Amino acid sequence: MRVEIWSDIACPWCYIGKARFEEGLAAFAHRDDVEVVYRSFELDPGRARGDVAPVVDMLAAKYGRTREEARAMEEHVASVARGQGLEYRVEGREHGGTFDVHRLLHLAKARGRQEALLDLAYRANFAEDRSVYETEVLVRLAVEAGLDEDEARAVLADAAAYADDVRADEREAAELGATGVPFFVLDRRYGVSGGQPAEVFTRALEQAWEGRVPQPVDTASGDAAACGADGTCAV
Amino acid sequence: MRVEIWSDIACPWCYIGKARFEEGLAAFAHRDDVEVVYRSFELDPGRARGDVAPVVDMLAAKYGRTREEARAMEEHVASVARGQGLEYRVEGREHGGTFDVHRLLHLAKARGRQEALLDLAYRANFAEDRSVYETEVLVRLAVEAGLDEDEARAVLADAAAYADDVRADEREAAELGATGVPFFVLDRRYGVSGGQPAEVFTRALEQAWEGRVPQPVDTASGDAAACGADGTCAV
Repeated sequence: MRVEIWSDIACPWCYIGKARFEEGLAAFAHRDDVEVVYRSFELDPGRARGDVAPVVDMLAAKYGRTREEARAMEEHVASVARGQGLEYRVEGREHGGTFDVHRLLHLAKARGRQEALLDLAYRANFAEDRSVYETEVLVRLAVEAGLDEDEARAVLADAAAYADDVRADEREAAELGATGVPFFVLDRRYGVSGGQPAEVFTRALEQAWEGRVPQPVDTASGDAAACGADGTCAV
Repeated sequence: MRVEIWSDIACPWCYIGKARFEEGLAAFAHRDDVEVVYRSFELDPGRARGDVAPVVDMLAAKYGRTREEARAMEEHVASVARGQGLEYRVEGREHGGTFDVHRLLHLAKARGRQEALLDLAYRANFAEDRSVYETEVLVRLAVEAGLDEDEARAVLADAAAYADDVRADEREAAELGATGVPFFVLDRRYGVSGGQPAEVFTRALEQAWEGRVPQPVDTASGDAAACGADGTCAV
């Protein structure tokens, strides 16, 4: 079974949702037969590279609130994160465009290090005093995730590298009906929106597992042109 | 959209079915949004390494036919292959266990060269006088597919390398209801058995594309814990 998770490193509910999904997955009997793939979704796709602002200021501007009210919103999300066992730093966090982070995650995916880099990037953004909007920080995270430094640097320097992969993921999210993230798709048959409680994920996994035999497509010729598991080939 | 194709290099209908699928895919409007993944399925899983026999002899023994009758069966399959534009050699082809080929294909998959190696292996087995049951031939095919020679050699020498991946594919085929190959699964929702005519694949792709929005899973909390595409996060 395959679960695809559309998310953005800048999205607190994606950070929390990932932990909740993992808790739900751990309670699923067939967890060893589940492959997880992360897909790109930018919360703020138009944002220019380098246009970085403190999260609390960004929230205040976006919602027309005072800094104190915006800080209270962040405190609430932080309390939910902590309830899930995650560190969450309210002061000093920054908001910016995540296109480069997604491009780097696609390099990591091609090298089999996608989840390692994703976890490090979440940690840097939410729990540590490291800005994922700085190229040098991203290079360091890439190396910590097991990627080659020169290769990571080359991808970050070339804005076209893996750009099509990011856009393809985003186009696919729209086609599959995602209106926000995190968005979880189980075997392309079931969708879960949002960082739901762990039990929701366990139930969704069970539902997808039960119904996992694909529907046969009608064919005029039947199953004739095939070789059977006993080694015999229809002629 | 993702299409998974279970097949075996020793299976003539897989060789023909791959070409037919590709013809059907070429006629599908959204072909550029289709990702194809090949999965392992051994036609003769119990067969010992090195237990290789001429295909015609194997067919005669398996079906209790004379060599002439077995040869006629092969000639029939060859004529179908040629009708699909594929070369197919009747004399001199060998049959054997394909576990090593599948292990090597998994290495190629990890290096992004899966289809290149698969095409070369099909060609070697059906069109050329090269035995995919010889380690040196496999090493050469791997190099032609763009893999590192030492790495390919190391995988072939270590019978445990990628063995679990081959078995996981085969277990999954059984769970998804495959009784033979080629077996095509579209987005884990639709299944096509056998090397069907190209039009069947085009129709199946269209059907899967139409119904590709996943079914939402019921959640008590709705979509609350999510960040929207406009960058706002529910709190």
